[in-house]
Amino acid sequence: MKRTVYAGNVHSIHVGEYITIKGWVQKIRNHGGVLFIDVRDREGVVQTVWHDFLSTVHAELLLNIKPEEVVEISGYVRRRPEESINYQIKTGEVEILGSDIIRISSTLPLPFEISREFQLDELLRMKYRYLDLRRESLNKNIIFRSKISKLVRDFFHGNGFIEVETPLIVKYTPGGARNFLIPSRVFTGKFFALAESPQIYKQLLMIANFDKYFQLSKCFRDEDPRSDRQIEFTQIDVEMSFIDQFEVMSLVENLLGLLWKEILDIDLPKPFKIITYDESICRYGTDKPDLRYSLEVLDFTTIFQHSNIQYLKEAPFVGGIICRNASKTGRKYLQSYDEYLKSYGGKGVKVLKLDEQEKDPELFTALKTKYGMQPGDVLMVIGGEKYRSLELLGLLRKKIIEVEKILPDKEFELVWVVDFPLFELSKEGNINSKHHPFTSPLVEDIPLFSTNPLKMRAQAYDIVINGVELGGGSLRIISPDIQQELFKTLGLSDKEIEEKFGFLLKALSFGAPPHGGIALGFDRLVAILMGEESIREVIAFPKMTSTYDPLTDAPSEVEHQQLKNLHIKVED
Amino acid sequence: MKRTVYAGNVHSIHVGEYITIKGWVQKIRNHGGVLFIDVRDREGVVQTVWHDFLSTVHAELLLNIKPEEVVEISGYVRRRPEESINYQIKTGEVEILGSDIIRISSTLPLPFEISREFQLDELLRMKYRYLDLRRESLNKNIIFRSKISKLVRDFFHGNGFIEVETPLIVKYTPGGARNFLIPSRVFTGKFFALAESPQIYKQLLMIANFDKYFQLSKCFRDEDPRSDRQIEFTQIDVEMSFIDQFEVMSLVENLLGLLWKEILDIDLPKPFKIITYDESICRYGTDKPDLRYSLEVLDFTTIFQHSNIQYLKEAPFVGGIICRNASKTGRKYLQSYDEYLKSYGGKGVKVLKLDEQEKDPELFTALKTKYGMQPGDVLMVIGGEKYRSLELLGLLRKKIIEVEKILPDKEFELVWVVDFPLFELSKEGNINSKHHPFTSPLVEDIPLFSTNPLKMRAQAYDIVINGVELGGGSLRIISPDIQQELFKTLGLSDKEIEEKFGFLLKALSFGAPPHGGIALGFDRLVAILMGEESIREVIAFPKMTSTYDPLTDAPSEVEHQQLKNLHIKVED
Repeated sequence: MKRTVYAGNVHSIHVGEYITIKGWVQKIRNHGGVLFIDVRDREGVVQTVWHDFLSTVHAELLLNIKPEEVVEISGYVRRRPEESINYQIKTGEVEILGSDIIRISSTLPLPFEISREFQLDELLRMKYRYLDLRRESLNKNIIFRSKISKLVRDFFHGNGFIEVETPLIVKYTPGGARNFLIPSRVFTGKFFALAESPQIYKQLLMIANFDKYFQLSKCFRDEDPRSDRQIEFTQIDVEMSFIDQFEVMSLVENLLGLLWKEILDIDLPKPFKIITYDESICRYGTDKPDLRYSLEVLDFTTIFQHSNIQYLKEAPFVGGIICRNASKTGRKYLQSYDEYLKSYGGKGVKVLKLDEQEKDPELFTALKTKYGMQPGDVLMVIGGEKYRSLELLGLLRKKIIEVEKILPDKEFELVWVVDFPLFELSKEGNINSKHHPFTSPLVEDIPLFSTNPLKMRAQAYDIVINGVELGGGSLRIISPDIQQELFKTLGLSDKEIEEKFGFLLKALSFGAPPHGGIALGFDRLVAILMGEESIREVIAFPKMTSTYDPLTDAPSEVEHQQLKNLHIKVED
Repeated sequence: MKRTVYAGNVHSIHVGEYITIKGWVQKIRNHGGVLFIDVRDREGVVQTVWHDFLSTVHAELLLNIKPEEVVEISGYVRRRPEESINYQIKTGEVEILGSDIIRISSTLPLPFEISREFQLDELLRMKYRYLDLRRESLNKNIIFRSKISKLVRDFFHGNGFIEVETPLIVKYTPGGARNFLIPSRVFTGKFFALAESPQIYKQLLMIANFDKYFQLSKCFRDEDPRSDRQIEFTQIDVEMSFIDQFEVMSLVENLLGLLWKEILDIDLPKPFKIITYDESICRYGTDKPDLRYSLEVLDFTTIFQHSNIQYLKEAPFVGGIICRNASKTGRKYLQSYDEYLKSYGGKGVKVLKLDEQEKDPELFTALKTKYGMQPGDVLMVIGGEKYRSLELLGLLRKKIIEVEKILPDKEFELVWVVDFPLFELSKEGNINSKHHPFTSPLVEDIPLFSTNPLKMRAQAYDIVINGVELGGGSLRIISPDIQQELFKTLGLSDKEIEEKFGFLLKALSFGAPPHGGIALGFDRLVAILMGEESIREVIAFPKMTSTYDPLTDAPSEVEHQQLKNLHIKVED
């Protein structure tokens, strides 16, 4: 028989109809003579009832039915008696009076239960991902992911954007440590790379006069195993010509506004907040500030210059956070802050409470009058080099929120961080791009190339949600001369510039329009919308953080002959 | 100034308005004192007019303006005089009376002209792809590709399908000669592969109860350089549970019907024709028959057994094509058929005309009475092993259509080829899958596994348009036992089966629903809809057939250190 309706869609409009469903046995309850079998498919679960089933031709099958077997069941739909109605589920008002059943597929004993939501071992879930995906929460995430991708695409098409697919097999950029390599079979000893992002191609598309481009693009990065990254991920990639940065930002606000409304029924207030990089670092100790919490980092340098705490008195910078009405002020807790910061290489934190004010009356008077510090408040300060201290204070702020279980002021707080520095110093003392080397500096900062490049600011903007960076963008350099100067500032020789980016410099020389764009992490976006901590919960077949795939047992060894065809061999 | 309207969208509704456009200089005509500058953007071209321009502040700029520079132009829109209206273009009724102009970007001398459509060297086009993409024909193809992808996605979402992204970095399957390999940095000496298709993952999604899946998926194959393949390509990938093959076919017919209507305004007659594999081979000498032409291959074996042409008399099979009213019957042409077939390893073709009938009256009488052969017709026959002869006749049929310039009966002829053999013999005499090893045999053919597997037919179906295979699909094996038997028939040992496909056999053991699907070549589909011969014309950044990319000069050499990090080295 053909399926007449999804099990999960059986409804009171079907009452009296003879229907056929196909799906998985979810639950079996034998109430002595009456058997209940819940059947699940993509749309949900419906209850089938079998009266006097032992006297039917199906007795044998029904007696032996097992969870997760695939069955076809036909029968009349009827309304459940009032007392049996289950308002928790879509089909809860009805049930199917079982009349015919066929076992389509049987099952081996299951490695874990499907019908119940509970904490499972990650490795086990990955190994049996096809079973894990049957579970309601994960199933729902994947279905919503599809829905969200449709909303995103409709949004861009509706706004005159063209989706263009850019290559995933691309040129290897020397020094690209995070590039996956692909040996070429045709060209001995040469390699392609997997695209880290469509960045250069989308710029070429602007030069090719496509004006408004978007793509839900796969990107690849040979990441070091980390908590929540994947070696392949999906990006909402956008580029526009003849725009300023506020047009890109406003577009993203409209997109996110639409998604929050459609998926969560939440009206995001627009425009979003904007904060400069400097302000974000000074007030929150991070360029990814979580603005759901009002807790701020304050500058106490001057005040502590008059204190009698010698190392703070002499510190070039003293910053701190006042935790109002602190509840966890026991030694154990205060020590845990210290240990936490030390685990990040900090020297620890100085804790001050008003009940110690007789030790340094002048200091505490200042704290009371200038910062309104009151009994019960705890001040935690860190002294040292300004930006390193601020970084530690950013971590401390997170920790205080966690320890004190501070509730967020709202569910979501979205903020643009702007005016990023164009460059940053690496640990080795090299000048690196803060974002990527195609980011345009602020026009007024261009003279600093030759004098103080580290002071240059970029026309770049990151969008941060609840302290998580969802994505970032910038206006791009369109002058081949400025692009060349930037590459040189990064320490590239003329030869290296030509080898790596010669084609881009050439392209910029044939009439490049002003352009800019943004890239948003699609996996992260879906995770945020679905309330998931990990992007693995919104990816159908993710890999472990080690990059290992327990489902297929990849990566694996390869026959010698195959490597020979590719002109490579394994080096121990 | 901000752009107020796309250059290509300026229209009579704008007459009297002061507007600003931004775009590329397409053409410049100096009519002594009056300068015409055509400006192009994504949407098209508009004419700007500059009267007495030498006496304006813009004289210097206007005198030196060059094609493909980026400009911003403001001015009033006016209706063109009746005699100057250009009905060929969207903006042809109006022009912009130039009042202000800014040069945004200049250009180096161009490697080729953008504004004119003409044949260009492929290598040059590829090297300057961003300029090539500005040309109208290619620009239009890429914009339509975006439109078509939107129609495809809307169709599937509208039919209850869920788009799921499956991994592109996957397990290497031993023996997968066309797999691209990716060395793992984390796991020394191990490799991932790039996905050839989402085949196994979409089957796992059916086992995971997603019921209806689709994806516009990237696929990767290390193809030998060939006329019109790319190492990365896009596939419309579909899988459904609890269906039969006619439901898949009908879905595809609805999709293609929609696209032909929306893009070409053509109503495709439905249902499409269906032909079995055997019939297609016998009548057209190919499993990709071009049914726009009525020309057919005929079996002349019996007739030639009574002829006096010794080698055909003794041939196990004689097949031929009657070319009615042949126009190119000169020796030169007839010889060219011979040479053509010899280039494919054939022994040549025997040509018969009625004016030679006295040589073998009995034969020609049969040809006249049984096949209605008439003066002016030419019969070409090939004798030998049946299937090899049919293959050559299939090639001959194509050649006749080309030489005789036979016009197609219609623009498009779509046909399903069904009942494919499950296996085929390789040149080395090994049994291979005709499609892929997950294809289900016809139920009644299952007993042949142990007796005559080469006689087994598959529940497989290919869709062929104008002699080009657009895609193919099948119902899949859901019994782990049958799947195992099929792997064994392919010559895999138990160990190999476990290593390669153990996880699939396991997945099939946990309640697999009956399922099947199809994959359509998206690049090919867009090419057909846009009337392009090559898929390179509908891909923004394709590679040469050699896999080389002249734009970025990929593949390239890689630093020793980078290879070391990946534990590989190049072997000469």
